[in-house]
Amino acid sequence: MIKVGIVGAIGYAGREFIRLLVAHPQAKLVCAVEMETGKKLQDVLPNLRKLVDIELEIFDPDVIAKKCDVVFFALPAGKSMPLASELVKRGVIVMDLGSDFRIKDAEQYSKFYKLEYTHPELVSRSVYGLVPWYREQIKQADIVAVPGCFPISNILPLRPLVQYAEPNVPIVIDSISGVSGAGRSLNELFHFPNMNENMRAYRIGNHQHIPEIEQEIGGKYTVQFTPHVAPLTRGILSTITLRPTKDINPSEIYKCYDDEPFVRVLPQGQFPEINYVRNSNFCDIGWTYDDRTGNIVIVCAIDNLVGGTAGMGIQCLNVRFGFPEDTGLRFPGMMP
Amino acid sequence: MIKVGIVGAIGYAGREFIRLLVAHPQAKLVCAVEMETGKKLQDVLPNLRKLVDIELEIFDPDVIAKKCDVVFFALPAGKSMPLASELVKRGVIVMDLGSDFRIKDAEQYSKFYKLEYTHPELVSRSVYGLVPWYREQIKQADIVAVPGCFPISNILPLRPLVQYAEPNVPIVIDSISGVSGAGRSLNELFHFPNMNENMRAYRIGNHQHIPEIEQEIGGKYTVQFTPHVAPLTRGILSTITLRPTKDINPSEIYKCYDDEPFVRVLPQGQFPEINYVRNSNFCDIGWTYDDRTGNIVIVCAIDNLVGGTAGMGIQCLNVRFGFPEDTGLRFPGMMP
Amino acid sequence: MIKVGIVGAIGYAGREFIRLLVAHPQAKLVCAVEMETGKKLQDVLPNLRKLVDIELEIFDPDVIAKKCDVVFFALPAGKSMPLASELVKRGVIVMDLGSDFRIKDAEQYSKFYKLEYTHPELVSRSVYGLVPWYREQIKQADIVAVPGCFPISNILPLRPLVQYAEPNVPIVIDSISGVSGAGRSLNELFHFPNMNENMRAYRIGNHQHIPEIEQEIGGKYTVQFTPHVAPLTRGILSTITLRPTKDINPSEIYKCYDDEPFVRVLPQGQFPEINYVRNSNFCDIGWTYDDRTGNIVIVCAIDNLVGGTAGMGIQCLNVRFGFPEDTGLRFPGMMP
Amino acid sequence: MIKVGIVGAIGYAGREFIRLLVAHPQAKLVCAVEMETGKKLQDVLPNLRKLVDIELEIFDPDVIAKKCDVVFFALPAGKSMPLASELVKRGVIVMDLGSDFRIKDAEQYSKFYKLEYTHPELVSRSVYGLVPWYREQIKQADIVAVPGCFPISNILPLRPLVQYAEPNVPIVIDSISGVSGAGRSLNELFHFPNMNENMRAYRIGNHQHIPEIEQEIGGKYTVQFTPHVAPLTRGILSTITLRPTKDINPSEIYKCYDDEPFVRVLPQGQFPEINYVRNSNFCDIGWTYDDRTGNIVIVCAIDNLVGGTAGMGIQCLNVRFGFPEDTGLRFPGMMP
Repeated sequence: MIKVGIVGAIGYAGREFIRLLVAHPQAKLVCAVEMETGKKLQDVLPNLRKLVDIELEIFDPDVIAKKCDVVFFALPAGKSMPLASELVKRGVIVMDLGSDFRIKDAEQYSKFYKLEYTHPELVSRSVYGLVPWYREQIKQADIVAVPGCFPISNILPLRPLVQYAEPNVPIVIDSISGVSGAGRSLNELFHFPNMNENMRAYRIGNHQHIPEIEQEIGGKYTVQFTPHVAPLTRGILSTITLRPTKDINPSEIYKCYDDEPFVRVLPQGQFPEINYVRNSNFCDIGWTYDDRTGNIVIVCAIDNLVGGTAGMGIQCLNVRFGFPEDTGLRFPGMMP
Repeated sequence: MIKVGIVGAIGYAGREFIRLLVAHPQAKLVCAVEMETGKKLQDVLPNLRKLVDIELEIFDPDVIAKKCDVVFFALPAGKSMPLASELVKRGVIVMDLGSDFRIKDAEQYSKFYKLEYTHPELVSRSVYGLVPWYREQIKQADIVAVPGCFPISNILPLRPLVQYAEPNVPIVIDSISGVSGAGRSLNELFHFPNMNENMRAYRIGNHQHIPEIEQEIGGKYTVQFTPHVAPLTRGILSTITLRPTKDINPSEIYKCYDDEPFVRVLPQGQFPEINYVRNSNFCDIGWTYDDRTGNIVIVCAIDNLVGGTAGMGIQCLNVRFGFPEDTGLRFPGMMP
Repeated sequence: MIKVGIVGAIGYAGREFIRLLVAHPQAKLVCAVEMETGKKLQDVLPNLRKLVDIELEIFDPDVIAKKCDVVFFALPAGKSMPLASELVKRGVIVMDLGSDFRIKDAEQYSKFYKLEYTHPELVSRSVYGLVPWYREQIKQADIVAVPGCFPISNILPLRPLVQYAEPNVPIVIDSISGVSGAGRSLNELFHFPNMNENMRAYRIGNHQHIPEIEQEIGGKYTVQFTPHVAPLTRGILSTITLRPTKDINPSEIYKCYDDEPFVRVLPQGQFPEINYVRNSNFCDIGWTYDDRTGNIVIVCAIDNLVGGTAGMGIQCLNVRFGFPEDTGLRFPGMMP
Repeated sequence: MIKVGIVGAIGYAGREFIRLLVAHPQAKLVCAVEMETGKKLQDVLPNLRKLVDIELEIFDPDVIAKKCDVVFFALPAGKSMPLASELVKRGVIVMDLGSDFRIKDAEQYSKFYKLEYTHPELVSRSVYGLVPWYREQIKQADIVAVPGCFPISNILPLRPLVQYAEPNVPIVIDSISGVSGAGRSLNELFHFPNMNENMRAYRIGNHQHIPEIEQEIGGKYTVQFTPHVAPLTRGILSTITLRPTKDINPSEIYKCYDDEPFVRVLPQGQFPEINYVRNSNFCDIGWTYDDRTGNIVIVCAIDNLVGGTAGMGIQCLNVRFGFPEDTGLRFPGMMP
């Protein structure tokens, strides 16, 4: 039984991670760090009553290092690096559900996150936790940067195909996210009557996930990334328009995912829905070639909190500790 | 490994049952009966791809009896009885997620369901599968009538308290359901633009769950049951107004649920939300005494498809086959 | 052209009032008071661009009295009384969309609102602006207390029938509101992911609308009022269970509403939906007699922001200034 | 008072048109054609009770021509042409809210609609009813092809800018629609539980609105059009990515819309939301230049049923009959 800690237990990423961990047969939550110290976790998150009995505690690296095999972080940008550093020093494996360890290029990080890049030496040791592409490295990693939700929904479909893209035409990505992607902080934009029956685009051309996507699709392709938010709680649907330089057969190319337990490529002309993946770790990909325009259009669906965050985190944990990769994750999308 | 069949695999109850069964470590889906025979289940329900590989088949009792230890039914009212009868004959345990075996009184059944009561001898052998109240009987049952969603959300809170109710004042129940409770059949009422941002009450005073509720709260109390539908997919919130004949302390009385794994009673004055129970097997109960009116008001929340149908079915299966009761059900509500 | 001011222009009640006023052919918005003084109203509420060009101002009673024939208030409880008093003094007609002038009994006000009742002399001069029942008084009123949303949806259906209710059995009201009823203030409870797909009951037995309802149904009947919130923006559905002392024919009794332009009573056994009334000033009422229980069950639907607040306010303005009552309100519910 | 008929009164376009017409001070509904002949319109659409009293009738061109000055059509593709032809013959002005008269190129029409193009002579006489661009022609038109919802949300923002687009790079349009855009026909895809909390893309590269958009942006630009549906009832948000060939200043170019009553261009870097335009005739446009990619990204929001269909129809009627253009349309977006 692996002993697991979570720093940032109450935010949406943290609580989703706990929700999955409770159902994991080989891991146990032994430590939950959050600002409401002294309270019982199950009093703050009543969904956990009769399942979890644990007190929220402060971040004390000595205490945590003693009782945890691995600690997950689910904190706002810039907050994990210094804390994680304390645990790494003490030999604890760290997995960050946030964004602090994902960007290898300090300049890009600072530009898009408007934050200082305090621990470059940790970032260079960290492994990007996108399991299908970094499985072997994760097995040995002591710092795993679990990828972001928008990036997962774009890197998985793009990475095998991107080499065939016309390099001078930016790849157009219009991603639509459910509102849970914005986290639990109160904001007029996400007050129910302001968000229900509403949609908007935001941070066009300067969203912080742009450098992460561009880094992981090879570094030489530019993406025109426009995130949108729509009135649903969970799910990301990404629509990618790519201009190929020559005839390709994506069905053949996507065979690289045949043995992936959580990536499913649909036959040409079929497209995924959030319904196929909600509350699951799956990433579903559909594509078509438009002979009128010469473009390939790809649609990808994930649950931003499971396949896009906490589920990918559990999968990293399984890989790192040698459990079957689908341990605690073997459940289909909730439909409806 | 228990071998399980499902008759009515595609409806919302059936597919939810399959979703939970896939995650159950000691049971395996070996048979899925549905009208679209010949098709692969995972082609009809794409959330199951890479998890299930099974062909939909016709109802052939000989074939099914040979391969199944237990068969669940998830069919419209009146359809399960004759088919179940064929399996019972052949020694298969039957658990009905539908309504055919729940009502012990033939006259009440016919009055509210407008259907003939074809197999009274089976109904009298069946056990009402409300685990907290029929646990011992379920252990031996060869026919289990898994309770309905509205009934669960009202019987669990009412059964311990009802004896203190003023018998001449009908207990008022206003239950609000998510739309999945209406099933997958197309109906103008549930066309998205007609249901979104909408609410309605329906079948006031003649809903088919009335006799089931009245039967299970002791048979001598009348309920004024008004079901409502609101624009969410999952969840039932039931508000019960009961006029007690004398001073009672519900906190004491509800201690009967202290050891129930899936019933949680909140402290007086706290009330549950769908958020606490969505996608879980829990039934959360809150209550208050209103000294201005002399009434007790109780609020109960369940997920109609899990705690209200398929999860209760899995719990019955666990009880019947001697597995720990929370096997495959040990996951907290999805919040958000 | 009547010159109209609004104090509290940005809250949901205030902005809805402005939205309706813009379409009113005989009234003009000449003053908008809000805390963001100095800003243009249309910059804060972009739906008003190209329709309104007005600057937000501070509350200066001399300035306002000079330019307005009538001033509407849309402020939180307790805030309107002192300000309105300044305008009444200066001869301006005041109409309060808030709750300060509705409760005639100081003790009840203080008990339920937890606020001091500072201007009893104004309250006693005020007229309760429920047009169908106070039409004649409104014509002369210089202070109109426009009724609350929950009260409207319960008083209109109850007032004609309540005299036939068994006085010792509290009338049970379960009202379900859309989230806009909670206003624009940020609150964890109404953060989109916490409210979407969720429902809850709240303030059971002590909601501030209880004394208003009891006052307007005659003062001797007790209501067991349980408000609920469901995941939609607009609309209230109220379900009322009333125990009559003798045989009555509600169809006959409800004929009192035949000539009301905005009250519609459906034939027995038909029930209204939010869809019939959304974005309209209508109040739709359906009822049935349940011979199994001896109760009458009534369902009432309104749009909480139009028929439940701002539309009722416009109707009061029309009555007061002698315009046809449906001026600016002659539009059907938005369906869908 | 203009006498107006509607053919296809019950569909979402038809009933929305009626809803707006009821509030129009200079037009009166005198004829409503629908299949449920013999019924009262207000019995089928209960939102119209106490506002409209008219019987549904069959399509009899002689009868209709006698009583109507203008007849609107709101029928599925291919159904209006033959019927409209009968009215045009009889001197009635026809305005089609459907798609039959929009596409000037017969081949394109047949390719995308899979229908025969039966009355080319009528199409060539028809005027495309996009008021800001065809105002003068509409004044004289006897057949007006009111534009489609997706086209309006893309043509209005694109038409002034498109001449600066790189002709070899298809303009990428990802439009997201509310579900009312799919009409009232029952379809598993739009059953509430299948659509709520869900999103999907559809008809990628072959949607029937492609030729309409390409025709109206000048005929020589290709669009990569991917429509999406999200779980809200009303609204279209279109995101357009355009690659300009040289430096342009959209703020200057968009000044062409300064005097348009219903087109609002936001300052650079501000983007519209559905909330700004819901239930209004406005089309709101925001844009930015991304200097990292060299693209211009434009976002446009409309209410698909008002600004995208029925409101544009009323505006055409106003233009055609010489009423002020905003008659019956002078109301802001509903927010929330």
